[in-house]
Amino acid sequence: MAEDALVVAGRTFGSRLIMGTGGAPSMSVLESALTASGTELTTVALRRVDPSAQGTVLQVLDRLGIAVLPNTAGCFTSAEAVLTAQLGREALGTDWVKLEVIADEVTLLPDPVETLDAAERLVADGFTVLPYTNDDPVLARRLEDVGCAAVMPLGAPIGSGLGIRNPHNIEMIVERAGVPVVLDAGIGTASEAALAMELGCDAVLLASAVTRCHDPVAMATAMRHAVVAGRLAAGAGRIPVRRYAEASSAMAGRID
Amino acid sequence: MAEDALVVAGRTFGSRLIMGTGGAPSMSVLESALTASGTELTTVALRRVDPSAQGTVLQVLDRLGIAVLPNTAGCFTSAEAVLTAQLGREALGTDWVKLEVIADEVTLLPDPVETLDAAERLVADGFTVLPYTNDDPVLARRLEDVGCAAVMPLGAPIGSGLGIRNPHNIEMIVERAGVPVVLDAGIGTASEAALAMELGCDAVLLASAVTRCHDPVAMATAMRHAVVAGRLAAGAGRIPVRRYAEASSAMAGRID
Amino acid sequence: MAEDALVVAGRTFGSRLIMGTGGAPSMSVLESALTASGTELTTVALRRVDPSAQGTVLQVLDRLGIAVLPNTAGCFTSAEAVLTAQLGREALGTDWVKLEVIADEVTLLPDPVETLDAAERLVADGFTVLPYTNDDPVLARRLEDVGCAAVMPLGAPIGSGLGIRNPHNIEMIVERAGVPVVLDAGIGTASEAALAMELGCDAVLLASAVTRCHDPVAMATAMRHAVVAGRLAAGAGRIPVRRYAEASSAMAGRID
Amino acid sequence: MAEDALVVAGRTFGSRLIMGTGGAPSMSVLESALTASGTELTTVALRRVDPSAQGTVLQVLDRLGIAVLPNTAGCFTSAEAVLTAQLGREALGTDWVKLEVIADEVTLLPDPVETLDAAERLVADGFTVLPYTNDDPVLARRLEDVGCAAVMPLGAPIGSGLGIRNPHNIEMIVERAGVPVVLDAGIGTASEAALAMELGCDAVLLASAVTRCHDPVAMATAMRHAVVAGRLAAGAGRIPVRRYAEASSAMAGRID
Repeated sequence: MAEDALVVAGRTFGSRLIMGTGGAPSMSVLESALTASGTELTTVALRRVDPSAQGTVLQVLDRLGIAVLPNTAGCFTSAEAVLTAQLGREALGTDWVKLEVIADEVTLLPDPVETLDAAERLVADGFTVLPYTNDDPVLARRLEDVGCAAVMPLGAPIGSGLGIRNPHNIEMIVERAGVPVVLDAGIGTASEAALAMELGCDAVLLASAVTRCHDPVAMATAMRHAVVAGRLAAGAGRIPVRRYAEASSAMAGRID
Repeated sequence: MAEDALVVAGRTFGSRLIMGTGGAPSMSVLESALTASGTELTTVALRRVDPSAQGTVLQVLDRLGIAVLPNTAGCFTSAEAVLTAQLGREALGTDWVKLEVIADEVTLLPDPVETLDAAERLVADGFTVLPYTNDDPVLARRLEDVGCAAVMPLGAPIGSGLGIRNPHNIEMIVERAGVPVVLDAGIGTASEAALAMELGCDAVLLASAVTRCHDPVAMATAMRHAVVAGRLAAGAGRIPVRRYAEASSAMAGRID
Repeated sequence: MAEDALVVAGRTFGSRLIMGTGGAPSMSVLESALTASGTELTTVALRRVDPSAQGTVLQVLDRLGIAVLPNTAGCFTSAEAVLTAQLGREALGTDWVKLEVIADEVTLLPDPVETLDAAERLVADGFTVLPYTNDDPVLARRLEDVGCAAVMPLGAPIGSGLGIRNPHNIEMIVERAGVPVVLDAGIGTASEAALAMELGCDAVLLASAVTRCHDPVAMATAMRHAVVAGRLAAGAGRIPVRRYAEASSAMAGRID
Repeated sequence: MAEDALVVAGRTFGSRLIMGTGGAPSMSVLESALTASGTELTTVALRRVDPSAQGTVLQVLDRLGIAVLPNTAGCFTSAEAVLTAQLGREALGTDWVKLEVIADEVTLLPDPVETLDAAERLVADGFTVLPYTNDDPVLARRLEDVGCAAVMPLGAPIGSGLGIRNPHNIEMIVERAGVPVVLDAGIGTASEAALAMELGCDAVLLASAVTRCHDPVAMATAMRHAVVAGRLAAGAGRIPVRRYAEASSAMAGRID
């Protein structure tokens, strides 16, 4: 799989599974799950970490050699998100940011206007911006146009486990994208992660599906396999969907 | 995964992916795909093999150490299927049989009445019977009641690539089954194989999805990962589906 | 709509909505709902009616001029169903019967083998048989072959309100049927009744969706409109499904 | 149904079906279809009508007594849409406008940023604004917050006939809306219009489904029934979805 690495803004990742850390029952379970997932990139909420504290998520990631993708979770406006990102850059020494600007605390849905505004500002300020967005193909294109390094559409609301509610939109985003597309939010189980990849996504980002299930290590392992499965299937040129079996005339030369 | 082996009628298989062989573009591609799939059990049409011929599927399976599951594909009546199975037992030296009694050549759907009749006769004749059936929970139960060693409901018509059309029925079959349930027919891509396992199936059987796609080896590898992913996810206790994120009060003691 | 009547075994019905009576909160609500539905054929459980009693469902139907379709609900074997039908014929003076042979009291799913056997016997005994069946296209064809006057596949288990779980199967049944196809069981709301008709069904049979909802008269009215809507839509030659709007070149001569 | 009228910005409409006019094969078919639909409000593209010309759509609507809802179809920027709306107001003498600002000519998807900007400007200029939008609950809320009189989310791309791709989003929009929600775009057949109403929409807007199908008058009639059906069903308090029939203990006091 080395030749099929994920490349975002010039950096290469061997795994196409990006993890979040929220919701784990303990730091040791989180560490085991991250290891089992095979992830090489994990997102951490800037508003919830103290880089100088002991026993933190950042230390776990450092020990595991997993790159940190700071995120602006908990920000409701462009201004908040920009400031949070800037403080995070100082503290963590990375100009990568997963941009999250949510509209409210109930749905946790992204605010399209504030997100686009923040993306433009952060790009102008030298950040490598990976924005969390809804599944609107137009907005995804707009985010790419202002210089985002990837687009990260949701499959369903954060933490819902509803999977990919509108595969048609995800396919449209993928078709029109010139940057990597990361399915972010909504995944509840392995088949959904595989489906995201089959729809053409370049990677999958998930947290709750692993951290909040009964057996995070098992699910992390499942997700690792699912992302590989979906990626391979996407490239294998699947059989067409038809109502019945292929007519026998089309099978000439094939083994029966 | 050794402790999570598939057990059918007392025999143990390390892989939960059962392969068919129809439709491969060449014997060498078939061999590579079977190897990539990791399968330990592969079904072969009794009506299409000559056990004494050179360069056959049987020789490939023998070389790879994959167990043979003869099937009665092409039979339209109980009588035909029973006779075919009996001749196969003589020729191949196994009393295992995948029972297929189809209703017509267009849909290739199983005939429920003939299938149940044949199953009963074959069990009485000492066969270990794994019947291909529709997704009716009642018929599945009936097949188990007459002594079948597994039940193999379809997800969709053979070769259709339509996936699992009625997950609700598959779940009902699984809940009520005392023998292994193998999702047989309809799978077109990896996420669907993972879903079958998440619904509680014990194994997945597929052929066209691998043999007729553009890159059978890639898809076989994808299916291997997908079945593992789905199995692990099924056991991991997935998060519940909800409309929005979990309420924060439920997150007490968890890492944010 | 007079020219588009439902014809079953030579009898003509102006409405394509067939009602059941189980579950109504009171006889007067039932009467109002039946009237609102516009139904001209309503099924009644033979095991639950006493033709000689006062204030019964049969008297309501008689008063409303709605034809009675006796059913064998509650029968678990072919023998029981045949006997029940025969007693009903004596008592009610009709040789029409909705054949129901269920497998168990939890799922209420039809038993395919017992149903087919009973259908064959009842046809031989001069009945006009309308069997409740699963959604297996093969069994539907078998039931027609033994002389049933219609086939009545389920959309989902009785009383589940799950709608039509496998539209693909219903379409296959319709395509291959030479007798009317009545979608029976599973409907929970109006759009699902419309969908049944769009899939090509000749009629819809439902009970719980109306009798057990909060406002049976409103829902009965909704179902009346939904069945008309679906029937008209099925005949109107709907636009093809495509990913985007029709290319403008195809719009030559059309009004923009 | 008089007591259940649609009210938008203080105006009352007896029908909850809003029609578009694009794509009809002839003016006479359009007239018949509009009549059959029962619509009382129909949208017309400002860029395609000449109010002074003879034999136009506007004359048909005037003759039928159907209110005109001018739209800004074909506009790609807020500035274009605002100018088009202003010219239309002069010419047609109405300050109602269906705001459409699309992102490109292939998908015809609405541009969220330009749409919100135009909505704000048009409201400030005294228009009654009904914006066509994607199915993002956050944007819908934003449009309401700037003073739109209704929100009109798509079910799927214009002209696609794909139905409602994400019912979950439509439900979220409905729940949070303080103005009428009109499902606009994507509807291909009657059951989908019924579903829109069942999800809680206040009205349905469609054009191609009627004008481009084989029998526009039949489909217009179907849509009229479907919208009524869906509205009634939405208010009737449907039965809950469950896997099997209601347990009999819950049926106490009900008729069997």
